[in-house]
Amino acid sequence: MHVFQTKKEVINWVNSRKKEDKTIGFVPTMGALHSGHKSLMKLAQSHCDEIIVSIFVNPTQFGPNEDFNRYPRTLEADCMLAKEAGVHAVFAPSAEEIYGHSHSKITFSINGLNTHLCGKTRSGHFEGVLLVVNKLLNVVQPHNAFFGKKDIQQCIILQSMVKTLDIPVELVLAETVREQDGLALSSRNRYLSSSDREKAPLIYKTLKASKSSILNRLSVSKVITNAINLLKEKDFLIDYIELVNESDLEPVSEIIVGKSYILACAVYLGTTRLIDNILFKA
Amino acid sequence: MHVFQTKKEVINWVNSRKKEDKTIGFVPTMGALHSGHKSLMKLAQSHCDEIIVSIFVNPTQFGPNEDFNRYPRTLEADCMLAKEAGVHAVFAPSAEEIYGHSHSKITFSINGLNTHLCGKTRSGHFEGVLLVVNKLLNVVQPHNAFFGKKDIQQCIILQSMVKTLDIPVELVLAETVREQDGLALSSRNRYLSSSDREKAPLIYKTLKASKSSILNRLSVSKVITNAINLLKEKDFLIDYIELVNESDLEPVSEIIVGKSYILACAVYLGTTRLIDNILFKA
Repeated sequence: MHVFQTKKEVINWVNSRKKEDKTIGFVPTMGALHSGHKSLMKLAQSHCDEIIVSIFVNPTQFGPNEDFNRYPRTLEADCMLAKEAGVHAVFAPSAEEIYGHSHSKITFSINGLNTHLCGKTRSGHFEGVLLVVNKLLNVVQPHNAFFGKKDIQQCIILQSMVKTLDIPVELVLAETVREQDGLALSSRNRYLSSSDREKAPLIYKTLKASKSSILNRLSVSKVITNAINLLKEKDFLIDYIELVNESDLEPVSEIIVGKSYILACAVYLGTTRLIDNILFKA
Repeated sequence: MHVFQTKKEVINWVNSRKKEDKTIGFVPTMGALHSGHKSLMKLAQSHCDEIIVSIFVNPTQFGPNEDFNRYPRTLEADCMLAKEAGVHAVFAPSAEEIYGHSHSKITFSINGLNTHLCGKTRSGHFEGVLLVVNKLLNVVQPHNAFFGKKDIQQCIILQSMVKTLDIPVELVLAETVREQDGLALSSRNRYLSSSDREKAPLIYKTLKASKSSILNRLSVSKVITNAINLLKEKDFLIDYIELVNESDLEPVSEIIVGKSYILACAVYLGTTRLIDNILFKA
């Protein structure tokens, strides 16, 4: 498995693979890889000939009070996991390699999709995601890029970017991978104390129960209020629990048969922010 | 020569050319083609095997009070000129083909480079240029793209976009083509009345004389004031005449030997807005 640190190495490798008519599958990550990432790599192999994984804790998608500095960096273990998963190349650049010395003069602004859910409290986050993913797609030029549905808002915003900018890539979205007790895998789970880890599966349990209640035609606002109260009782701090349209992420107070919805939440256990969601059709 | 109206046709053609190891040269235009465009097409042929020209009057780069509706559309003549120039394909899409039915959810914002020169009065103009050029580059995926230095601020902003977003293309900038009397070629010249057409060469004459005065160490602000007064006397309306750094487009009041500068202007004759510039090293 190759480990590249520069864009130039990646570009050369991709070009040589394409010369041999190989298709390129790209899995962008921030490292601290877990089985969720591994499932993305396996999915990539079922679509493409050559798989490249980027490992880059992207500074521009963290707010000033977020966990950029303490975000886990485990490059050696990450490379082992990638190699085991059959990945052909890892791209692990420095921030300087990605952004250069000068401040970037051009950024993205998003109308609409980033005003909801995580966009409300994570100001600038999705602009940073769009910038780095756009850059990485331009460097790697893959046929397919793979993202996990745990970050559902990110998935929808990236799909919008690809369509709006005619980026020549097909995004493939993978189902969220969960622990046996239902907790969605996340690099941030390793922040949890053991008592918080015991509580954490309640997030998904609550989402599942709430989804059933909503499908059973209970009032959406009452279901969500109940979910919030239930989690608050167990010492969760609630950023949001919301039902939104899949199409435009607009909040929804009543469901319509045949349409697709996302029940999404972001909550804190101690200082650890966890997100999860369920996508379903009414 | 092919004439394409859809992105899909362009993508298929480009892919087939690349399969035969041909390099692709791209000349994006708004049509109403003149000898300036023709020189870009000739330049493209000296760099690349296959040349594609886009003809698209891009609505997102016109302000509400600008000349989008009256901008000349001369597709038939444009195709003849392109064919004569040895172009292999023209891409002449509708606005619907480029932007689709829905409003785009993602746009560019620029820090710095668009606050100067034309950016001061043409709010949103460069964001529209970045959006459409980014989209066209993603569709065409050329090896080189060709732009004229008459639109020098556009050139510098696009170079910044390509670098900032790691877009896999090399931009080639071509010298401004002029009439014998010095007037920079522009699709908008055809708006001019015959008496205004007679006055128009004074723009370049004034820029040239001002450049010489600046190189002769006369005060920059005095030289510019004189230039403005001279043009005003001849019924020009002045948007700006400014000396700026080539690197960051910041206004300059004193020159330093060895550095590169742009003396740029935008003026009106009647309702017609004309721009021109001189790039020089002190």
